[in-house]
Amino acid sequence: MASPQQSPRVAVAGVSGYSGGELARLLLNHPGLTTRPMFFGRAGEATGQVLTDLQPQLATTDGIADPILPFSWDTLVANKIDILFLALPHEQSREWAPEAIRRGIRVIDLSGAWRLKEKKNSAVYNLTDADPAAADALETEAVFGAPELHAEAIAKARLLANPGCYSTSMILALAPLAKAGLLDPKELIVCDAKSGVSGAGKAATAKTHFMYAADNLSAYNVFGHRHTGELLEQLHLSEDQIQFTPHLLPIPRGILSTIYVRLTQPTTPEAITKLFADFYAGKRMVRLHQTPNLPQIQHVVRTNYCDIGFHLHKNGTRLLLVSCLDNLLKGAAGQAVQNMNLMLGFAEQDGLL
Amino acid sequence: MASPQQSPRVAVAGVSGYSGGELARLLLNHPGLTTRPMFFGRAGEATGQVLTDLQPQLATTDGIADPILPFSWDTLVANKIDILFLALPHEQSREWAPEAIRRGIRVIDLSGAWRLKEKKNSAVYNLTDADPAAADALETEAVFGAPELHAEAIAKARLLANPGCYSTSMILALAPLAKAGLLDPKELIVCDAKSGVSGAGKAATAKTHFMYAADNLSAYNVFGHRHTGELLEQLHLSEDQIQFTPHLLPIPRGILSTIYVRLTQPTTPEAITKLFADFYAGKRMVRLHQTPNLPQIQHVVRTNYCDIGFHLHKNGTRLLLVSCLDNLLKGAAGQAVQNMNLMLGFAEQDGLL
Amino acid sequence: MASPQQSPRVAVAGVSGYSGGELARLLLNHPGLTTRPMFFGRAGEATGQVLTDLQPQLATTDGIADPILPFSWDTLVANKIDILFLALPHEQSREWAPEAIRRGIRVIDLSGAWRLKEKKNSAVYNLTDADPAAADALETEAVFGAPELHAEAIAKARLLANPGCYSTSMILALAPLAKAGLLDPKELIVCDAKSGVSGAGKAATAKTHFMYAADNLSAYNVFGHRHTGELLEQLHLSEDQIQFTPHLLPIPRGILSTIYVRLTQPTTPEAITKLFADFYAGKRMVRLHQTPNLPQIQHVVRTNYCDIGFHLHKNGTRLLLVSCLDNLLKGAAGQAVQNMNLMLGFAEQDGLL
Amino acid sequence: MASPQQSPRVAVAGVSGYSGGELARLLLNHPGLTTRPMFFGRAGEATGQVLTDLQPQLATTDGIADPILPFSWDTLVANKIDILFLALPHEQSREWAPEAIRRGIRVIDLSGAWRLKEKKNSAVYNLTDADPAAADALETEAVFGAPELHAEAIAKARLLANPGCYSTSMILALAPLAKAGLLDPKELIVCDAKSGVSGAGKAATAKTHFMYAADNLSAYNVFGHRHTGELLEQLHLSEDQIQFTPHLLPIPRGILSTIYVRLTQPTTPEAITKLFADFYAGKRMVRLHQTPNLPQIQHVVRTNYCDIGFHLHKNGTRLLLVSCLDNLLKGAAGQAVQNMNLMLGFAEQDGLL
Repeated sequence: MASPQQSPRVAVAGVSGYSGGELARLLLNHPGLTTRPMFFGRAGEATGQVLTDLQPQLATTDGIADPILPFSWDTLVANKIDILFLALPHEQSREWAPEAIRRGIRVIDLSGAWRLKEKKNSAVYNLTDADPAAADALETEAVFGAPELHAEAIAKARLLANPGCYSTSMILALAPLAKAGLLDPKELIVCDAKSGVSGAGKAATAKTHFMYAADNLSAYNVFGHRHTGELLEQLHLSEDQIQFTPHLLPIPRGILSTIYVRLTQPTTPEAITKLFADFYAGKRMVRLHQTPNLPQIQHVVRTNYCDIGFHLHKNGTRLLLVSCLDNLLKGAAGQAVQNMNLMLGFAEQDGLL
Repeated sequence: MASPQQSPRVAVAGVSGYSGGELARLLLNHPGLTTRPMFFGRAGEATGQVLTDLQPQLATTDGIADPILPFSWDTLVANKIDILFLALPHEQSREWAPEAIRRGIRVIDLSGAWRLKEKKNSAVYNLTDADPAAADALETEAVFGAPELHAEAIAKARLLANPGCYSTSMILALAPLAKAGLLDPKELIVCDAKSGVSGAGKAATAKTHFMYAADNLSAYNVFGHRHTGELLEQLHLSEDQIQFTPHLLPIPRGILSTIYVRLTQPTTPEAITKLFADFYAGKRMVRLHQTPNLPQIQHVVRTNYCDIGFHLHKNGTRLLLVSCLDNLLKGAAGQAVQNMNLMLGFAEQDGLL
Repeated sequence: MASPQQSPRVAVAGVSGYSGGELARLLLNHPGLTTRPMFFGRAGEATGQVLTDLQPQLATTDGIADPILPFSWDTLVANKIDILFLALPHEQSREWAPEAIRRGIRVIDLSGAWRLKEKKNSAVYNLTDADPAAADALETEAVFGAPELHAEAIAKARLLANPGCYSTSMILALAPLAKAGLLDPKELIVCDAKSGVSGAGKAATAKTHFMYAADNLSAYNVFGHRHTGELLEQLHLSEDQIQFTPHLLPIPRGILSTIYVRLTQPTTPEAITKLFADFYAGKRMVRLHQTPNLPQIQHVVRTNYCDIGFHLHKNGTRLLLVSCLDNLLKGAAGQAVQNMNLMLGFAEQDGLL
Repeated sequence: MASPQQSPRVAVAGVSGYSGGELARLLLNHPGLTTRPMFFGRAGEATGQVLTDLQPQLATTDGIADPILPFSWDTLVANKIDILFLALPHEQSREWAPEAIRRGIRVIDLSGAWRLKEKKNSAVYNLTDADPAAADALETEAVFGAPELHAEAIAKARLLANPGCYSTSMILALAPLAKAGLLDPKELIVCDAKSGVSGAGKAATAKTHFMYAADNLSAYNVFGHRHTGELLEQLHLSEDQIQFTPHLLPIPRGILSTIYVRLTQPTTPEAITKLFADFYAGKRMVRLHQTPNLPQIQHVVRTNYCDIGFHLHKNGTRLLLVSCLDNLLKGAAGQAVQNMNLMLGFAEQDGLL
């Protein structure tokens, strides 16, 4: 499982959105994918469109046009697709992922359809399944695609649930502390997170109108953002222990999460530095900042890095963490490719530097 | 006509858009309007909404709520409305303006419905009228609301056609030269104009999405923007003499027009300065810059000023003009109030400084 | 003290910055200041400049130019200045404020020089005084200019310390809870605050470069922002009880503070609403949002309002507050004028709506 | 000369600026540069800094740090540097380029020091040379690095003058028309160009302050921008034939030039399309848009493409061109690498897609 396959072939369903566009770009330039990726539309009918009709910034001068194919299992099977990326609404993913697995095609799903194991958490998605028992089984099997936490399971995954953008930024900042037992269970962890507008998707709505977002900042989904369940499950926290508030930033892309924790015992900046360095040793897509340096959005945008930094209060227990990433890359398409790399036996950073 | 009326009363139909919001703000704070303006929705039914539901930035702490009334001629007449502002699509204005005039209510129309006298120019609006003869008569009577050019006619107008935002910026820069006969008819006047996104309206579309407009610049409506006819008619130019290209700027509001003209004879910067100073003498809403100073958008935003500056080439005939204004104020609601001031006998700048 | 004085006259020292520009604009348009304000430069020599050389957006067409005068006590006294605004570095204010008071001129100081009573808090400013005993006495006398909290003292103040921008947004959100004894002293109050770039001042630095701030977000001054002391003193908190982290937003102006508190006892949204409504009854410059509505920056920019909203967790004790204001208005020049209004017996909102 | 050299090695002097940072990024990832590039500071002394101190966004997790070396001819020669990139002020380049050539090191200069052949054009740079005769000879020899126009000469160049950002966008749009003799010499070519703030450099100045550039647009250097000479020399135009006005856009990067020309004879959109397609056949870094599609900045940012589109008026002679590029890539560092590719025998797009 850890050695590269012969000429793996991948396909993408859903390339009209922002994540889909980044995914297409990354896959087309991936050094390990010598066979060209295939691109499918959402519905079953042919559209006559090519990729650059949907993503004009991807236009090249090499004379090659990638058709947007009508979605078809037969086409996927006939072309021996190894991995199918689903960049689709979660309802669609809930329907197609089991179908793909049944046909022996591994799935990397960018929606929230398969990220959560506990019904009380996944209830937020209002999922309905044609075959609930099979869906439950697949839900149990699905691997949460945080490559820094679950590399082994990812390598073998049939169904890979690519994490949310906000949750990735927060989980990676908190996981080393959680593992070390340093998070004081009696103190609320406050996650004040801010995201660029691409996180809201391509649909033209009142809230994605330039006039709403520009020169503005607003909090939303207080006490109720869908990514909260990922935090609870991945960090083994109860709902009482963490509060996450998302905000809409007037920028195209990038997330910065400011995280406030109380440690169970006093420590030193050096110890925190070592804890993180050990935890992320050998992990290529996490960059750690030396305190008092802190990450900022402009340094991660258009990269697949998650940057993490911290300040420790002189009392040794009050810790502030700052975590940054590009919501379309490490928060979506980039992390999906990183997961693909692990699933296909490539180095995790291949095609991502 | 030049003396203030007793307690004039005005009403606005259409306050949900950006211009409508600015209009409401200006009228509510106008020192000459001692009777509170009335606000009407587009359709005839009551909505139960108040002004701040549509324009939350106008919220106050004075305990007064302005209801959005169902549109009704009876209400307008019963309340002795002197002037009705129409901030509506041009089709609606084409229908309601004649009705208002018939009932003795003067109209200030912010749409393009009544700005153009020549059919070949107004054809771009695809106007259809229930009573074409009456509409034609009213079209002939309608006064183009450029207060610096037509103050006398405006004071007496029954139907005031408030100019377009782009066209205001260009007409005010070119009018002194046109009047002086300095525009070389053999040389194309190039108007390269750039506008903030509020000019595209409040509808959520692909082009008003934050991700489309932010960090971007694009030209649009080449050889075909609706405001072109206003330039032709107001400056007495043929279509061969002027080219206007609009661009979408990644900012909320403001227009900057860069205008390239060839003069019929060599002149000096001092002569140009004097020409403009004489033309705009006593006009309070035009600010002239001393060459080599040029206007910039940030100095006009949220003001009703049109700022104009120029550079004259050392050859004495090649002239570059820069004209700036706020598209929602001098380019829409502010100019509408300036016109109202003239129509009601106030000073033109009342409520606008 | 509560009745308007006859023709009060004010002067401003320091009009080159962003706050100074807004202050000049507000004072020039203030309905109660029938005598024109005077403007002084920082140094003592004449510059020959007029106000619009420093603040070009304030240009008018009325033919009046306001000279920037060389700073001179004699000129201030000869012109019977009632109130002197100091929009200067705190070191300068520390020197000039006692001088002004000695000459019978009341002072509204926009710097941090006089805001803090406790030496451990004011130490952050490294203040040095020519006459320490007199400075200490004046420090004790100085009134913290939060008009919603200290209206009576403000009305009589000789030295008014205008609050910081960040601190205003947080103090106004927390004051009703603090007064009601609802802030759990065992739980950290987290204040995650974000400000537009004008808060960083007009000096051209690496951090105010467009390329640093645009498309970016960054945290700074962790555990060490100068406004922290204002929170501690005004809310009667210890340093252990509150943590404030400022962030630099890629927008020109506006602050949004997201505040996380734990209440001492479970309550209801209705009770919180009533608490705030009672606390701010009759206060014209605070707008309260009905939960689940939350303030956002675009609705307060270019106003003197502080907008406050909240969400209460279903457990009744976890409370999220959002507080927004314009850092140059309610956070600086606007609040200074609001304080002036109280000091001169005007209504607090005069010249600010 | 057209075949790849064995392990070419390059060095960069000046990596602290925006172009230098992009250049470092491109060279470090270039597939043909198997030997790591070297980086030199501007001055001669060691600083102890590494590349990521100056360009933090380039931080990696591979454990390799690139030292910023003190500039030294001995070091360059000892390391058998084939090409030295100079990303320095033009005065420095004027001094160092002859030195490098004398030592057998080819130079790619990103400044304006060597772009212009005619003294009346280069006078704008106020160049002074220690050895004027040698400098003049080198000036004559220097190759203007527009790869789409001068590929053969570039391949053999010892001194490559990398073009200006504005001029690249305009020259590439106009060159096909100039070559075909279609530019009417009696009609002014108007180039209205707009650039993001990175074009103004990293120095913190009043004009690069966020508060100056954000939400703003301003014209500058009217009738006098330094890139004008490049237009004249490359397109064989006289100063009377073309006018170029730059504007400062409120975005980090990207240039859009709107160009107005009159053709010598009526033509068709199809003929224009064919003219451009033929001219740019086989050129990989120019993308042509099919009318009525026009380029926009967001599609070229972070690419090395120059995108060109046009609208032809129905009269067949009035032509509008729109040309877009990223000022730091195709307008600077990317084009420099494209030139390096030609100089070293690589494909022009290597390391640039």
